[in-house]
This record gives sequence, C-alpha cells and structure tokens, in this order.
Amino acid sequence: MRITGARVIVTSPGRNFVTLKVETDEGVHGIGDGTLNGRELAVASYLADHVVPMLEGRDPADIEDTWQLLYKGAYWRRGPVTMAAIAAVDMALWDIKGKVLGTPVYNLLGGRSRRGVLCYAHGSGRTIEDTVEQVLRLREEGYRAIRAQCVVPGIDNMYGTPRGDVSGQRPDLPFVEDGWASEKYLRFAPELFGKVREAVGFDVHLLHDAHHRLTPAEAGWLGRRLEDHQLFWLEDAVPAELQESFRVIRQHTTTPLAVGEVFNSLYDCHQLIREQLIDFIRASVVHAGGITHLRKIAHFAEPYHVRTGCHGAADLSPVSMAAALHFGLATHNAAIQEYGHHSEETLEVFPRAWSFADGYLHPGEAPGLGVDIDEGLAAKYEYQRGYLPVSRRVDGTVGSW
Amino acid sequence: MRITGARVIVTSPGRNFVTLKVETDEGVHGIGDGTLNGRELAVASYLADHVVPMLEGRDPADIEDTWQLLYKGAYWRRGPVTMAAIAAVDMALWDIKGKVLGTPVYNLLGGRSRRGVLCYAHGSGRTIEDTVEQVLRLREEGYRAIRAQCVVPGIDNMYGTPRGDVSGQRPDLPFVEDGWASEKYLRFAPELFGKVREAVGFDVHLLHDAHHRLTPAEAGWLGRRLEDHQLFWLEDAVPAELQESFRVIRQHTTTPLAVGEVFNSLYDCHQLIREQLIDFIRASVVHAGGITHLRKIAHFAEPYHVRTGCHGAADLSPVSMAAALHFGLATHNAAIQEYGHHSEETLEVFPRAWSFADGYLHPGEAPGLGVDIDEGLAAKYEYQRGYLPVSRRVDGTVGSW
Amino acid sequence: MRITGARVIVTSPGRNFVTLKVETDEGVHGIGDGTLNGRELAVASYLADHVVPMLEGRDPADIEDTWQLLYKGAYWRRGPVTMAAIAAVDMALWDIKGKVLGTPVYNLLGGRSRRGVLCYAHGSGRTIEDTVEQVLRLREEGYRAIRAQCVVPGIDNMYGTPRGDVSGQRPDLPFVEDGWASEKYLRFAPELFGKVREAVGFDVHLLHDAHHRLTPAEAGWLGRRLEDHQLFWLEDAVPAELQESFRVIRQHTTTPLAVGEVFNSLYDCHQLIREQLIDFIRASVVHAGGITHLRKIAHFAEPYHVRTGCHGAADLSPVSMAAALHFGLATHNAAIQEYGHHSEETLEVFPRAWSFADGYLHPGEAPGLGVDIDEGLAAKYEYQRGYLPVSRRVDGTVGSW
Amino acid sequence: MRITGARVIVTSPGRNFVTLKVETDEGVHGIGDGTLNGRELAVASYLADHVVPMLEGRDPADIEDTWQLLYKGAYWRRGPVTMAAIAAVDMALWDIKGKVLGTPVYNLLGGRSRRGVLCYAHGSGRTIEDTVEQVLRLREEGYRAIRAQCVVPGIDNMYGTPRGDVSGQRPDLPFVEDGWASEKYLRFAPELFGKVREAVGFDVHLLHDAHHRLTPAEAGWLGRRLEDHQLFWLEDAVPAELQESFRVIRQHTTTPLAVGEVFNSLYDCHQLIREQLIDFIRASVVHAGGITHLRKIAHFAEPYHVRTGCHGAADLSPVSMAAALHFGLATHNAAIQEYGHHSEETLEVFPRAWSFADGYLHPGEAPGLGVDIDEGLAAKYEYQRGYLPVSRRVDGTVGSW
Repeated sequence: MRITGARVIVTSPGRNFVTLKVETDEGVHGIGDGTLNGRELAVASYLADHVVPMLEGRDPADIEDTWQLLYKGAYWRRGPVTMAAIAAVDMALWDIKGKVLGTPVYNLLGGRSRRGVLCYAHGSGRTIEDTVEQVLRLREEGYRAIRAQCVVPGIDNMYGTPRGDVSGQRPDLPFVEDGWASEKYLRFAPELFGKVREAVGFDVHLLHDAHHRLTPAEAGWLGRRLEDHQLFWLEDAVPAELQESFRVIRQHTTTPLAVGEVFNSLYDCHQLIREQLIDFIRASVVHAGGITHLRKIAHFAEPYHVRTGCHGAADLSPVSMAAALHFGLATHNAAIQEYGHHSEETLEVFPRAWSFADGYLHPGEAPGLGVDIDEGLAAKYEYQRGYLPVSRRVDGTVGSW
Repeated sequence: MRITGARVIVTSPGRNFVTLKVETDEGVHGIGDGTLNGRELAVASYLADHVVPMLEGRDPADIEDTWQLLYKGAYWRRGPVTMAAIAAVDMALWDIKGKVLGTPVYNLLGGRSRRGVLCYAHGSGRTIEDTVEQVLRLREEGYRAIRAQCVVPGIDNMYGTPRGDVSGQRPDLPFVEDGWASEKYLRFAPELFGKVREAVGFDVHLLHDAHHRLTPAEAGWLGRRLEDHQLFWLEDAVPAELQESFRVIRQHTTTPLAVGEVFNSLYDCHQLIREQLIDFIRASVVHAGGITHLRKIAHFAEPYHVRTGCHGAADLSPVSMAAALHFGLATHNAAIQEYGHHSEETLEVFPRAWSFADGYLHPGEAPGLGVDIDEGLAAKYEYQRGYLPVSRRVDGTVGSW
Repeated sequence: MRITGARVIVTSPGRNFVTLKVETDEGVHGIGDGTLNGRELAVASYLADHVVPMLEGRDPADIEDTWQLLYKGAYWRRGPVTMAAIAAVDMALWDIKGKVLGTPVYNLLGGRSRRGVLCYAHGSGRTIEDTVEQVLRLREEGYRAIRAQCVVPGIDNMYGTPRGDVSGQRPDLPFVEDGWASEKYLRFAPELFGKVREAVGFDVHLLHDAHHRLTPAEAGWLGRRLEDHQLFWLEDAVPAELQESFRVIRQHTTTPLAVGEVFNSLYDCHQLIREQLIDFIRASVVHAGGITHLRKIAHFAEPYHVRTGCHGAADLSPVSMAAALHFGLATHNAAIQEYGHHSEETLEVFPRAWSFADGYLHPGEAPGLGVDIDEGLAAKYEYQRGYLPVSRRVDGTVGSW
Repeated sequence: MRITGARVIVTSPGRNFVTLKVETDEGVHGIGDGTLNGRELAVASYLADHVVPMLEGRDPADIEDTWQLLYKGAYWRRGPVTMAAIAAVDMALWDIKGKVLGTPVYNLLGGRSRRGVLCYAHGSGRTIEDTVEQVLRLREEGYRAIRAQCVVPGIDNMYGTPRGDVSGQRPDLPFVEDGWASEKYLRFAPELFGKVREAVGFDVHLLHDAHHRLTPAEAGWLGRRLEDHQLFWLEDAVPAELQESFRVIRQHTTTPLAVGEVFNSLYDCHQLIREQLIDFIRASVVHAGGITHLRKIAHFAEPYHVRTGCHGAADLSPVSMAAALHFGLATHNAAIQEYGHHSEETLEVFPRAWSFADGYLHPGEAPGLGVDIDEGLAAKYEYQRGYLPVSRRVDGTVGSW
C-alpha cells in the first residue's frame, strides 16, 4: 500500500483550520490536523511545500519510521510549526491504519483504559456572579469539571473571559492588546474561588488558568491561597521555557500544577516531569507531534505520577479532538481533556463519530479516527487572518498573553 | 468478544517452557510465554491458580486495562514471577488483537522502523583458539554481531562457555556449582579480545558478558582495557539492584554498557537510564511484563540515547522471540536482539513465522505474533526440574552466577 | 545436622496461609510463613517445586549462606513471590537454630532491646461516629496506638473499613471492585481526625493509611492538614515504586511518613531511607526475605533515624507474627508492629507463645520462634481462592487498591 | 519613523534564500535573512502571512519591543521556523537603525572587541590524502582554522564531504539517503587527524564535526582519542535535544566541545552552558532569533567560559553572514565564525561590505549591516525545492543526518 498524495485544506468555518488529507493507492484516505492558531499558513506551507513530496510512495503503515523521517530528516527540529506539521501526518497515518484494519484507533493503542474521557468546559464571566452562574449552568449540562475564569476588576480584557468594551483598542493594530497587573489578579483569584466553591460545593472539579502571567514566587503565593478550594489544577502559572522555574512554585504549594499547551516535544517537559514539578502535562496531540509522540510523552510521565490533561480549546479542530480522545481512552495516565466547543459551522465541515455524554467524551467506534472533512463545504470558508491577543503590563512592557 | 478461558502448558522439548493459551468466544486464540528459567512452575501456578480466573469474560482487546488490572490488582507488585505471568497474558492478547485484525503485531506498534532486527549469536570456547574459531564460524554463517566468551584458565566452569569436566561436582546437589575468581578473569578478558580482534578484524560487532561478577571498580578497570577493542557492549558488569553502582563504571570507561536481563520493570532501570549510566537496556519481553511494559521502557529510554538489546538466550521460548521481534522491528530505539538457538524439538513444538537471514531476524508477516504451540507434541515432553548453576568464589562465598 | 526435607502446607482457617515445615535428621523441625495474600499458590509452588530440593542435605545452621544461595542462585531476583519463599525458609531456619540452642530467636539476634513490642490495632467504622467508638473501644482494650479508618461519604467500599452493601458488585468477577475519588477523601480525612482527637485526646497514638491512592501533591496537601492532629504516621501516601515520589510529600509536611508493606527488598526502599523521605519502613518479615534480610534493612535505616513499623495485617500468619516479634524485641530501631487479629480457627491451627498485654506484643520465651502448626487441623481447611479487591476511579480507570 | 511595509524575497542563486526587506516612511530600508535550509517556504509564509501585517506602522527603532511582540505575541514559541522569521525582522531593524544613524551595526553593539573575526573553512576530501591536500591549500589561502572532514571507508556518502557515486540512490525519493556506521567512523577519525597534523603541524586550528551521529559514550571514546591532536573543537558529537547528554562526553575527554547550529533559543542550550558541558555555542544569528537574542545567549555564556562559534555554512545568506560579523566583532566572547563560501551568483544577488583577509572576516564600515539584495537579479532565480539528506543506519533505521 502506498501513499499517492496528500493535500492541505485550509478552511475557516468560524475559525481557521489546517487539515491534511493523505490519499493512498487503495482508495483509503486519512486526515490529520495541523492547525496552529494565528500562524496557520506557515504550517500549511511546511506541509504542502516541504512534507507532502516526502510522503509520496511511502507505505502508510510505517508510522514510526515516517515520524522519525520527518523529525530527524528536517535537520532543524522542534518548534510549533514543525511539530504541528508532523502531527498532521501522524494523525492521518493512524487514521489510515485504523480504517485499513477496520478498527478505531484507540484499539490499536491497546484498547480502552476507561469508560470515557473526563473533560472540562470553560465557565467564564465578567464578574464573579457571572462566573458562578456559568459554572452552575455547565454543571447542569453535565460537566464534572469546569475551568473558572473571571475578568479581574481593573484589567478590562483578559484571556479566557468574555471580551468587554474594546473601544479603547488601537484601530491600526491587526491584533488586540490586553492589559495586565499581577497584583490585582493575585488578590482577586482566591476571592473568586471562595465564591465559586460556596455556590457549587466540592462535588465538581474546578480548574483555573493563570495563562503564563506570574512569576514563580507569585505563583507559589497564589497556589497556597487556593489550596483550601481544592483546585483540580492551576494551569500555566509561569512561562515555562525554563522548566526549573516550577521548582519555586512546587516548594510553596500543593495545589496541583498543569502546564504545556505551548509545548512541542518531550524535551520541553522532561525536566518538569522527571523532577515531579507538575501533576498534569497539557501537551496536545496537534502541537506535540501527533499520537506517536504524545504517547511517548505519556509513557515518560507515567512513572512520575504525572497524568495528561491535553489542551483542547476550540482552536484544535474536531480532527485533533478525535485523535485526543482515542489517545485519552487508551492511555492509562490520561486524566482529563479540555473541551472547547466548536461552532456549528465547524462541526458541519468535520463530520465526526465522537460525542459528549454526562461529563465524558467518547471517541466513538468508527474505524480510524472517526472524523472526516467535507471538502466542498470547507471550500466555502476562506482563510481569515487572525491573531491571538498581545498582553502589555501597566508600564507598557510586552508580557506573555 | 470475550475471553472464555486460558490454559497453561508446560512442556520440555530440551528445555522447560511455560506457555499460556488464551481462548475466546470467537474461536481466535492467542499465546504468550511465561518461562522463568529454573522457577517455571511458580509462574505456571501464578497463572493457572490466580490469573486465569481473572481473565474469563474480559474483552481481549483491552490490553492496557488488563495489564493494569494484573499489575495493580495483584497488590504485591513486580518481581520475576509476577511480571513473567503478566507478560504471558500481554503477549497472548497482542497475538489475539493481531489475528482479529489480520495483521502482524509490529504493524499495530507503528509499523516497521527498520529492515530487520540485528541479532547476535554466542561464540564460546574453552580456549582462546576455540573461541576465535567459533567467532569465525558464526561470521561465516552470516552473523554481524557475536558475543565472545571463553573459559578463564584456572576457573573450570563458567557461564556462557562449554561445560568442562564436571566430575568434581557434588553429586548430592540438584544444581551445578561453578567457581569464580575476578582477578583471573580481569587479566584474561583483554587478552581474549586482543586475539579475537586480531583474527576477525573490526567488521563484526563483538559483545561480552561479565555476568554480574565484578565490583564497580573492577568493571571500570576492565572497561577501560577493552576500549581499543571497540566492543558493541560490556554486559552485566556488576549486579544491578543498586542502579547507582554504574556511576563508578561510567566514570572510568567509554566502553558501552548493557544490563537488565534480570530486570522486571521500569523501576529496576529508570535511574540507570535517566542518569545515562548505560547504553543498552536488556530487559526482555517475557521477564519485564510483556510488549506493553517493554514499550514503555523503550519510550522512557529513547530521549536518553539508551537503546534496547533484549535478552534472548534459549530459555526464552520461540513465543517470546516472536514478541521480541515484533517489538524490535517497530521500536525506533531497539538496537539488537540476543539470539540463543532453540533445539529442533523446541522448534517443532512451536511452529513460527520468524526467521533468520544475513545477520538479521524477521518476525514474518503472519497475523498476530506468528507463532503457535503444537499441544499434542508439547504433551510428549514432560517438565524436567532444572536449575541455573550457582557460583562460589575461591573462599566458598556464594557469588552472583 | 542436615535438612532431610521440607513440606509446604496450605491451609485456610478463615484465610489462606502458606507454611513451610523444614525437617532435620535430628528430629528438630522449623516452620516459616510464605503467605502472599491472593497469590498464595505461586509461593507454594516456588517452594515445593523449586526451593525444597535445594535444601535437602544442607546444614540448617548456615542461614546466611542459604539465604544467599536462594537469592543469588535463583538468578531472577526480587519480587513478592521469590522473597516470600525465601522468607519462609529463613524463618524456619531461625526457628530450628533457636530450638537446637534451646533459646528464643530474639536472644540470637542480640537479646532484648525493650520490654515489649508496641503494636497498633485497627479502628474502623462506616461513619465518623462508628470510628470514634471503635477507637475508644480499642483504647479500652489496652491499645496505645490505633489506626483509624472510615468509609468516605460517596465512596461505598474501601480498604481498611467494614464492607457495606455489595449488591452493586459485578457477579461475574472473582474479585471485588471498589471505587475511588481522592478529592472526597482529602476533604474528609482531616475532619475525621479532628473528631477522633476530640474524643480520645492526645494520649493515644493515631495512625492512618492512605493506601497508595494519592498523588504526591495530594499527599502533601493532606499531610499538612493532619499535622495538628499529630499522627504517629501517614501510611502509603502514594504508590512507591518510584521512591523519589516522596520528595514532594516531604517538602510539604512534617506528618511522619510510613511506607513499604509491598516492598520485598532493601532495593525497594534504600533511596527513601537514604534521602530521609520516610520515618518508618513497613517491610514485613514474610514479604521482604525473612529475618535475615529484614535485619539488614533495619541496620541500613538506623543511621537515618528511620525505624521499622512492620506490616502485620491478618494476612500474615501467626508464624510471621512470631518472627516479627522476635525481630521487634531485639532490633534497636524497631518502633511499632501492626497487629491485625487472627480468627479463632487460625489461632488453633497455629499454637503460639506470643501474646498481647497492655498495648504491647511479646514473642514469649519458648525456644525458636515459639510457634507451630497443627498439621491435622490444618488439613481440614482447604485452600479457598481469593483476591484482594481492585480499585477503579470514577472514570473507570484501574487505580491502586 | 514608521515601517510602511515589508516584503519577503525568495531567490535561488545556486541555493535558496529567504530575505525580508523592511521599508519605512523615510525611505530607509533594512534587510534580514530568514533562510531555513530545506524548509524555506514555511518561513516565507510565517513572515508574509503572519508577521508582516504586525510590523506595519511600528517604529523600527523599537527593536527589543518588536522582538518581544513577535516572540511572546505568537503564543506558540520557539522552533526553527518561528525563530528564523523573528531573526529576519530583527536583522532588518538593526540594519535600519545603523543606516539611520549612519554607522555600522557593530558600533551600536558596543564597538570593536577585536581586529577581525577569526573564521574557519571546510577542508574535505574523499580520502585522507585529499583531505590533507585541501587543508594545506586552505592554509595557503590564509585560513588559520580549518574543519577537516573525510569520507570514511565503507560509508559512501556523508555530511561535509564531496559526494561520491550516487547511482545507488533511490530515484523515487526527493531526498538523498546516506548510510552510517559509527564503529567505522570511530576507528577512522583518529587516523585522519594523525595524518592531517603530521602534514600541517600545530600552527593551524583544526576543527571536526561528528554531525549528531554518536552516542555519548562513543563521543567520549572519540574525544579522548583526538586529544593529542589538539582540536579547536569537536562539533555536534551527539543529538543535543537532551542537553544533559553532554555530561558523559565531558567526563571522558578534554577535547573542546561545540554544539548548537540547530538550536533556536537560549532554552536549547542554557543547561549545556550552565553546567559547562560545552566550550563553544554554535547558535546562528538566523536560526536563533536574530542579533537581539544571540547577544543574550552570548551574555549568558560569558561567565561560564563558553564562547560563540556560530554556524555559517553556505545555507546562511550573505545577509546572515553580515549580521554574524557585526555580532562577532563586537561581542567579547565571540571566538570564531564558520565561513562556508557562497557561489558567485549568490554574491552578485547580495552586494556586501564584508570581506575576508588573512584568516579573518571583517563586517566592513558601511552603515547598518552593509549588505543589500539586488531584487532584479534575485527575481531571475526561482525557488528550487531541495532537501537535506536523510541518514539511515546499516539496519535501515532513520538516524540523525
């Protein structure tokens, strides 16, 4: 069996998605996600201009060899563009293998490790009251784990919360500029969780994301003050390029720590894991090189009591979500999956077997990944250039968004 | 699909083997090896008396969950008996999965990473001349890697060499007692490899096994003196329960180090790997919990430049060898496989798809593991109690054999 | 003096026990315990099929040499089955030596280090009130140390507590499946100890067992919240194959930590001890290779301020308990002994010299271990296959029971 | 002053180059190199589709702020594509700043630290004799430092040497597949340097590149055997994603070690530097985020006695070379610059002020970087898809090229 070609499909049904469709001489095709939010076309070029010609004529069954060929053969390794491109190929080849063998991908990965994949939704508000209301609503909808975020008084716009009045934004910039002041946030977050716990009690998991904004000492301060609210995790406490940064946080709090949605390979997190500085690794199947590499990260993490809690905001296409769910159902130390809802348009473009029920996600029983792309429909949604916001501190310094 | 039952088959076609045959309601069966040389019946009991009743009614596709159930559910974890029993189940379930899906197991593990699995044979003699002759003969037969061992003058019988006159053995003991004197061996080994390299040159890989007999300082002494002979590896330099023992060896020599045939889990070698104290991990598919756990060990080792070189003496049945070859073909950082030849009787009892050609082993293309057991024939070879030899130093102290 | 033979006696007077009886040419016999709860017959086979033939003809006085012969001579080392089998031999030989010399074993180990061996009993309830009542009752009975466990609301069945309604259990499984939710337990445990301390004050030692269910961060969280209740120890906080896991716990709490009932050798705990990550090592005389090896563990622990607190649930036979008490009386850094009560039937099968009085256990003054087996009675209780329960988390993942 | 726009120019005068031209409202323009050999168009897309719209309207003088905006504002950080794109912008802005101020960039970086930038050339042959001849010729041409590489007998084609007969290559692959066998190379390299030193003596610096092919133990073995030949450095001994890999090498040899041409940020090498595992960091101005970030790497390295020796093969355009020379002249701990010669066509497309004389490179005194692009000429050379070769070991496993 041979790969006859591969096409990169860029579509924007509400959001931009980069999808790779790999075709074979036996008519079976596989699809993979290579979306890198805000830098989509660089991945599309990496795939179409450089990777696709390497695939033609190869046996799609040789997934590990293909992975190594694309990783080592690129010479210039790692990074989000490279690894998202490799991930797209990897997902598509697992999809093909499953279809050829007539079985869902999770079955190839060792079968079911659990009934379903616990997921968490986003409960966000512009005030504490709003946030409490959102959390209550999501619990009503069946969610057993909810990430709670709230606009901090004095910081108008911030990640993970509904946008407020943006009339102050500079019209000449193609991106939004948010403000930031750690000291305001630090005093506010414990109050927020006090109110949320008061309203919802302790029968639902609560998560929280600090979105790379703190210093290690600030994160330790916050973590300790959140301990009695028993968070499932505190996410992205500090920018994590320097893995040893988490030592300071860990020394000061037992609040469980999660990090890694911006990671691309095991080398971005091996020290965090080996020194047990985190409890959850959030590397995603699309940004961290596909199922093949994410499995290696999970296997590396298992002896260290570190479990996965993969990134899954709506910037990951339904294709990535399918791959994440097969991974999550099969992998013993997969703990939870972020579940950012896709728009109706997106779901129409990507017909899928996966589903949500009673707080859990299920990959479904279709062969392969159980997800496809409606190319006709996809063609109707042209790419829309977009950017993630930029964060500036009070004095105007660029911070981490 | 459900497991309807499982049987433990003990047979001794020249050597004792413990085989597990798992049967299903769809007629497909899988087989796995649980042989623990010299302690076979304990594994047979562990399986038949304790594990088999846990398997009945389970879905054979859920390999990871079954592994965790047998490992965590045993409460008392690790050790050779436990892990060989779990391995037997694990191999059998991968065999079933391959057969059900109509594909060789290596394809389920990500496909081929290489053309074939490099293997090494045993070239052993009672004198240096004998050993040289054996090495030359094996090279003639196509081997590209050969382990050279030789009786040390003054130490009559030792591991890995042809037995000499055993008239001095105590007739009342059910096991053989070998002698040992490190100082004799240490002076002899460099001479041996000088002669072997002189005869065969550098176009064949040479390996050597110190069989747990040295202290770390002795091993460092020896390793340095073997450096110019460019060994592929020096194996089992010291007993390795204390993993940090290898620090001293590593500080003193760049001779590549291999260890682990007696290991049963990642926890026996994680420090050796993480501190890069070894170059090759020799844990075997049967003693280290099956394909599922050995893959995790390999994945853990990959970022540390540690590759696998699995134990494969003739005490591993052709079933284990099949599993090892599927593992070896698919796993990127699998480097070499020990290939201890089985007797003709053994090969008749275990019909197999795997084969040797031109220095490499190949798992073959049959679905599943591609190996089976002829139960009728197996029944003809009754279990023969046997023991590995015991080693005593010059003063009579029990040493490590 | 020579060993003439040895027999393995499996009996089930309420529970399964594996006993080894070693006989000599001078009529003296010794007995040892090799019980491995849930995997008993594998040890019985290890002994009967493999070890016993090695013993015949040996001098029973050479205990250390026999230990080394069985450990190093097995080639495949460590693990619960192997080490329980070696332990059975080791106890029996110490028993013989004591009888031959007409003195209790503790006297051979250096004599009395203390008046008696402090022990702890199990105070468990289905509610906090029940638990408080049990603790009060045990204090009334003279216990000076009590392990308190309680069913956690929302988790029906769990280790160390009276079984509740099991009508929900799957009838097709030969084992019980318990549920688990750490977050519920974590909130409950501090409340439990608040109430217990309120009722009993601080004049009795309180212990608690987390039974391998937590992550290191969770254990640190809990340990800190238990500090003011001054526990004697928090046991088995996390699964301990990765010894360095305890670093995170230790950073966050001064609650004394105990671990090790599932350990089999010094190599399972040397890092825990050397880094002073624990306060008590719980390895038992039966699972950790007998008196000979347990003494070495204790000696290793002594300079690190680590004391022993051996496992002693009712799955350890009265034979093991005798050995543990001789060890405990003689060994300077033995701190406490778990005392799980045996059934009346069990105590009839195993006549014994040891006794409980005023919170302490005493090995008695009979020669040897001071315990025997009534073989006629034993023969009336046939082996009953049984399993320890399995634990599954809310999402169905196999956890550590 | 404002940036009015920026254009990405892809040209292939012998090789592919990606150049960014940034234009301003005051007529001054700056140019930067974003070439990523074999993945050029992905960088071109990253720049044109995503970065350029962010630049419009910005003050080109705010180089640091722009760097942070592109790095932190991308959200998905690091990696070769991202960092090459940022580097292109960074170089162009430094070029503009220099032109605006009418001074060469080195003057803005603190002025001259030395007379000129020591460089090394490539002396490569298909035989030892060829290699010796090339080295002698280069010394004759004035080079004071020469990297010597030679085809290893038995390995037909390899990095850094003239290609041999490629008739055996698979015609269906768009890339070349090289072979590799470490053991052949290891025996050969010391012989090569013995002969080279014999011919050229010790008055010229000799360098050598192992091109990521060895294991740490092999690299230690080789390093020790090269010590007496006093290499300036041994480069890229092992793949370096795992920085601690260099510990084993460092323990075994004092041969100076260099690594880093594939690195993209400080986080790829901070441990190598902090633990003093290397002597030279080879990160390049184009792959490691431009002058701004490379300066930070150099500043971090300075206290650790680590100096720079930047990658400078011909895949770096004359624009990068200019930036590297301004960096090298001004930075105190810059030690040497690789100098891979550009083709005549390339030099015509990129008119430049920098020059070679007497073993040193000089950035020249033109304002800014002193290099430009002839767009008309550039347009004549269309992009040619090309790949770096792939390396496969004897058994067919993908290795590091």
